[in-house]
Amino acid sequence: MNKLKILLVVGDGLGDRQVSILNAKTPLEYADKPVINSLLRSSMIGLMDPIGPGIVPGSDTSHLAIFGLDPRKYYNGRGSFEALGAGAILSGGDVAFRGNFATVDDNLVVIDRRAGRKIEEAEELVKELNQKIPEVQGVKVRFYHGTEHRVSVVLSGDNLSDKVSDTDPHEVGKRILNSEPTDNTLSAKRTANVVNQLTKLVYEVLSRSQLNEKRKAEGLPPANMVLMRGASIHRDLPKLKDYSGLKGAAVSATALIKGVCRSLGMEVVTPPGATGGIDTDYMAKARAAADLLKENDLVFLHIKATDAASHDGKVNEKVRAIEMIDKTIGKVLDTYGSDIIVLFTGDHATPVELKEHSGDPVPILLYVPTNIISDNLSDFNERSARKGSLRVVGLNIIDLLLNYSNRATKYGA
Amino acid sequence: MNKLKILLVVGDGLGDRQVSILNAKTPLEYADKPVINSLLRSSMIGLMDPIGPGIVPGSDTSHLAIFGLDPRKYYNGRGSFEALGAGAILSGGDVAFRGNFATVDDNLVVIDRRAGRKIEEAEELVKELNQKIPEVQGVKVRFYHGTEHRVSVVLSGDNLSDKVSDTDPHEVGKRILNSEPTDNTLSAKRTANVVNQLTKLVYEVLSRSQLNEKRKAEGLPPANMVLMRGASIHRDLPKLKDYSGLKGAAVSATALIKGVCRSLGMEVVTPPGATGGIDTDYMAKARAAADLLKENDLVFLHIKATDAASHDGKVNEKVRAIEMIDKTIGKVLDTYGSDIIVLFTGDHATPVELKEHSGDPVPILLYVPTNIISDNLSDFNERSARKGSLRVVGLNIIDLLLNYSNRATKYGA
Repeated sequence: MNKLKILLVVGDGLGDRQVSILNAKTPLEYADKPVINSLLRSSMIGLMDPIGPGIVPGSDTSHLAIFGLDPRKYYNGRGSFEALGAGAILSGGDVAFRGNFATVDDNLVVIDRRAGRKIEEAEELVKELNQKIPEVQGVKVRFYHGTEHRVSVVLSGDNLSDKVSDTDPHEVGKRILNSEPTDNTLSAKRTANVVNQLTKLVYEVLSRSQLNEKRKAEGLPPANMVLMRGASIHRDLPKLKDYSGLKGAAVSATALIKGVCRSLGMEVVTPPGATGGIDTDYMAKARAAADLLKENDLVFLHIKATDAASHDGKVNEKVRAIEMIDKTIGKVLDTYGSDIIVLFTGDHATPVELKEHSGDPVPILLYVPTNIISDNLSDFNERSARKGSLRVVGLNIIDLLLNYSNRATKYGA
Repeated sequence: MNKLKILLVVGDGLGDRQVSILNAKTPLEYADKPVINSLLRSSMIGLMDPIGPGIVPGSDTSHLAIFGLDPRKYYNGRGSFEALGAGAILSGGDVAFRGNFATVDDNLVVIDRRAGRKIEEAEELVKELNQKIPEVQGVKVRFYHGTEHRVSVVLSGDNLSDKVSDTDPHEVGKRILNSEPTDNTLSAKRTANVVNQLTKLVYEVLSRSQLNEKRKAEGLPPANMVLMRGASIHRDLPKLKDYSGLKGAAVSATALIKGVCRSLGMEVVTPPGATGGIDTDYMAKARAAADLLKENDLVFLHIKATDAASHDGKVNEKVRAIEMIDKTIGKVLDTYGSDIIVLFTGDHATPVELKEHSGDPVPILLYVPTNIISDNLSDFNERSARKGSLRVVGLNIIDLLLNYSNRATKYGA
């Protein structure tokens, strides 16, 4: 049997509900998607509950499930994925925090939780922090810049714990918080002490930084603090290649998703111009995906723009993002060739009128070039998907891909 | 996001099969149900397997599942639910029995397992038992009157067990049985001894009761024994509020279901006139439900009449009960208002020609007032439900309700 390559395309937050200004169509239903609909001649479509019916997935838990790992067993919080996505190399036991460059006053009261959000000096500030604070109380400290104001903070050492509270007060006008242990272990107490000492040092370094003097001179809020939240302890996850046999690579510009993929041992590519936003360079991502297909069994192409538009309540941008996904898939197929199966779905619904993730099932399309019994539906959307033959959960996806790419191994004799 | 209230309506034993005298329609299909069908304009419908495909649920196991607790993990027998439903307050470790007032002869041979069934003096007999038998061998004993001939018996003390056999011979003409331990533990041996001693004392008290002298004078069978069966040890269950965030209340007149709801920490209301039978005061239940919706997130409205009619094989009564459920839902919505989601289903099928519970899937309707993609079917019944988009198990229900009432919390980031 001819083993086929696999293109897995996830439109983040793709799923939606009826939208009144789209004449009660969903964005996917409304969008012009000639490529996707042309695949329907040899596709099964249907609905997927990423985690389970009604359960509202995060992007991280959903992607874990889609890649075949039950999040109830393997999910350990977002922080370590974000750090991995920002470029950290983590070992089991490292504790990662999500962080924000922020502006605080002399009393450590938060004035701007994002220090203006676009921080040109972020890379340099991170470099300065790494130089001046290599360790605290024997614990190794590393800072990684994500996008905009986002910073990951990683602690490495023995006996660390993620059972510590945030220093981020999550509100402007409040003083930064002491991190406190949230269980009675010595390791939690120790970690909280490290975090509090680290916070003092960060303020000393940043408030004296030349880069912030420059920002102030330009009338910009100084990035003089890193607010820390969401401690998560890193554990090594099973690798996609080991549990599925698939050599996989990912194209994504979103730190969280990049981190999930790196955790699973996948190569991750973020081509220049890919932003994770509505302004991303879709064709650059398509070219990267087509390129990776040559050396990999599975290429995962992640598009964040659908979710970003949904959270902002921008219906037209969501429609446009879907139309660009359509062109992107077309570009990959044109570039790579058609001897490939394609699975297109969302990691969750983010109904654009709701502006938040929801637990609705998401539409799923599985194109297999030859011989399968096609569902023979004429459009791919949340409504037509109800008439399709697939009714699955996220954890089924890898098995489906293995089966229809002729790569599955028999279970039993 | 606007959090919606939740009305959960369960028609006990609602599900059915084709009935010949209804021209091969099911009772739900045959019934006139203008309110329910009017909800279809913005509803998803489908099928639910309360426990799993083909598994025949009891009402207790099914309700546990529908409320989100896996009965395989949490179900411990019916006795403690019945006792709770009859008004008992139980602590972990208490052992509850289902009991019948019965008539026995001088040799303790059962003459009438229900002592005539309608026992006017039941409340007073229970009072007399509680006064005269406060304890046996250091174990506290309490009796609670259910409906008609039904009595719950609760033992409280250290080292009790539910691994004991019934004293109820389950047959007229047989002598009452000695309770025997069904495992080798000392606690089972001790509990069986207590039950046997208790049975002697119950006979002494009841056979000498003035109330039974009066019954005999009136030509009625004396209620001179309590047959005990179905020992179950009580354990505290997780509370709905804790595991779902939902403040819930129930309207039911059925001891078993009231007990399940009380176990989950729900307020339970049985309005005057609610009987658990075909003669129940539906509108009183509707008013109670509408009233409870003001102070609760979820109101559970239980209607037993569908199941009662099914067990009796009374097709027309089942149809009539469904038509009354329709009016009841209409009354709740008229009284409370429409800013609410409604889930209507059964806890199992009791096909009226079978007269027993079956493991068929039950139809389920989920009405969400705005924005969802409606399944656009014109009638709600076992046949049309197969064309709907829902295919779930009981354990999915709470997650679905949380999602579509905008009350779910995201799992992950």
